Amino acid sequence: MTADHRPLREVGEDRLVARLRELAGAAAGDVVVGPGDDAAAVRLPGGRLALLACDMMVEDVHFRRDWATPHQIGWKAAAQNLSDIAAMGGEPAFIVASIAAGGDISADVLEGIARGLAQAAGDYGASLVGGDLVGSPGPVVVDVAVLGWVESDLLLRRRGARPGDVVLVTGALGASAAGLAARQRGEAGDSIPGLPRALQAHHQPRPRVAEGRAIAAARSATAMMDLSDGLAQDLPRLCAESEVGARISAGLVPIDPACRAVANHFGEDALTWALSGGEDYELLVTCPPDAAAGLADAVRRATGAPLTAIGEITKERKVVLLDAAGRPRPWPPGFDHFGR
Amino acid sequence: MTADHRPLREVGEDRLVARLRELAGAAAGDVVVGPGDDAAAVRLPGGRLALLACDMMVEDVHFRRDWATPHQIGWKAAAQNLSDIAAMGGEPAFIVASIAAGGDISADVLEGIARGLAQAAGDYGASLVGGDLVGSPGPVVVDVAVLGWVESDLLLRRRGARPGDVVLVTGALGASAAGLAARQRGEAGDSIPGLPRALQAHHQPRPRVAEGRAIAAARSATAMMDLSDGLAQDLPRLCAESEVGARISAGLVPIDPACRAVANHFGEDALTWALSGGEDYELLVTCPPDAAAGLADAVRRATGAPLTAIGEITKERKVVLLDAAGRPRPWPPGFDHFGR
Repeated sequence: MTADHRPLREVGEDRLVARLRELAGAAAGDVVVGPGDDAAAVRLPGGRLALLACDMMVEDVHFRRDWATPHQIGWKAAAQNLSDIAAMGGEPAFIVASIAAGGDISADVLEGIARGLAQAAGDYGASLVGGDLVGSPGPVVVDVAVLGWVESDLLLRRRGARPGDVVLVTGALGASAAGLAARQRGEAGDSIPGLPRALQAHHQPRPRVAEGRAIAAARSATAMMDLSDGLAQDLPRLCAESEVGARISAGLVPIDPACRAVANHFGEDALTWALSGGEDYELLVTCPPDAAAGLADAVRRATGAPLTAIGEITKERKVVLLDAAGRPRPWPPGFDHFGR
Repeated sequence: MTADHRPLREVGEDRLVARLRELAGAAAGDVVVGPGDDAAAVRLPGGRLALLACDMMVEDVHFRRDWATPHQIGWKAAAQNLSDIAAMGGEPAFIVASIAAGGDISADVLEGIARGLAQAAGDYGASLVGGDLVGSPGPVVVDVAVLGWVESDLLLRRRGARPGDVVLVTGALGASAAGLAARQRGEAGDSIPGLPRALQAHHQPRPRVAEGRAIAAARSATAMMDLSDGLAQDLPRLCAESEVGARISAGLVPIDPACRAVANHFGEDALTWALSGGEDYELLVTCPPDAAAGLADAVRRATGAPLTAIGEITKERKVVLLDAAGRPRPWPPGFDHFGR
């Protein structure tokens, strides 16, 4: 690796992660999955794998204290991590959380964040078992690390998708982006149809833990990840890991009704929010075509959640969006953490 | 728990941690050690325990980028966490790291931090397996979480010290504080005797992983923790957890020669640095008096490190410092993360 003096915003997040992966080295020994997936996986005695992940939230980047309650901030910080475990087909077990905060922040705020962390963990069968609390002159930072488990034969990764596989998503997309867009426009009341649900989706997302377990248990999925940065950004990542491409039909993408309603109110394009918005924490899954209907049935029976086919995996390593007439449209841009 | 509207700096770190512990609830089910120790401990199949901890470092609070190299920043962030595992008698296995950084920071800096993280982990038998990278307008923040293992019958905690037990520390204290004090005075060269070693201790601390294992394996220690905030702050924490007090002889506290030399140069009190300085990452241990010599022998044979008796545990729940004449002196103040 040669020295790179460029600022982070010019290098871009995916390149940075790739460089850091080189540095951490290949998965070896007890490490089954190293850096670059939703969670790392390491071997435990007895055939299970431990899953380990972390996700950081920074005030005024990932949340605003005048938009979200402390409880919601804590909830979302935990939910992001629980979602990383869900994305590997695992079950979350324990979380620890580090919080940086200024000395003039009220103890109530910290307590609310901690309650949100503990409640999100508890709602998904995990426990908050420890943490670190540090003073900082900067923005409030909440970083959560999660430990989970998965049977080694149920592990799902970003790699594994094969040409011809169907691409599916759980639930529906765009509600979180709609909630954020309304907040950015100063709207947070219940006069706009769909907005209460969109705000709920944005501030208190529900990770798809049971759905991830049901998908893994069905044993037909070939790859999986969670949609944290949006389909536009995340699908190309799954494709890169699997060394494939994908063709997605815009008309098949399930758009959350709350996203449609809020987009309609503001005269925005619901599909754009659904593709590029991020923070839906739905699961993106691939499986062979003859298994897709059975997989969707299994997930619906186990959890009630829909699993919708939105396109297929291609051999050509390119991600393509097709409009209603089947014409290719430009793949939309995704979210980059360093704002490129 | 009633609402507390006071700012964090008035509440103080230990009170905050106590409140968060109430909230997380008692250790239950698979949780053997919950919040409030150096690491949490949870049961694994086969009699081992998983240890989980996290520690956060914030730019201009815990490090300065004009004082420490990126490699040293990463090293120290990892070392703090490895030390938390050592403090429980365990062996570190995996770390994950979240980094917040502004888009105008050079990619070199990030890579240096990651190299430091990976090298510290590797030097102690652990691997860097994942992480998160986020943009932030605020200070650089590095948060590491560590996963380690310990046999359930070797686990050591802060609680367990009994009246009459001897209090011991590994190595010697104060070198890190001396390095920091010199930095604060604008001195970083090798013209001051002891300063290169003091700076090394401050910027690249060596966690006592082998020593912690040797102490645990000897099976005579009753309590253990690492000295991250300094004996002045940390010993009262061990005493509070064990529901005991302690009487420490100032003349027995092992002061690092580098600390003495740098203190002498600046006309400062080496003992004050050794007691209150923090970040030495030595281990604080208690054991019955008849086991103390054998324990020190075992540690020295296994690792070469000294384990020095500095006082005893008392039934009276008060921490007392005795001067050379055996007269009680006021217990020195410790470091509080919210600057109280």
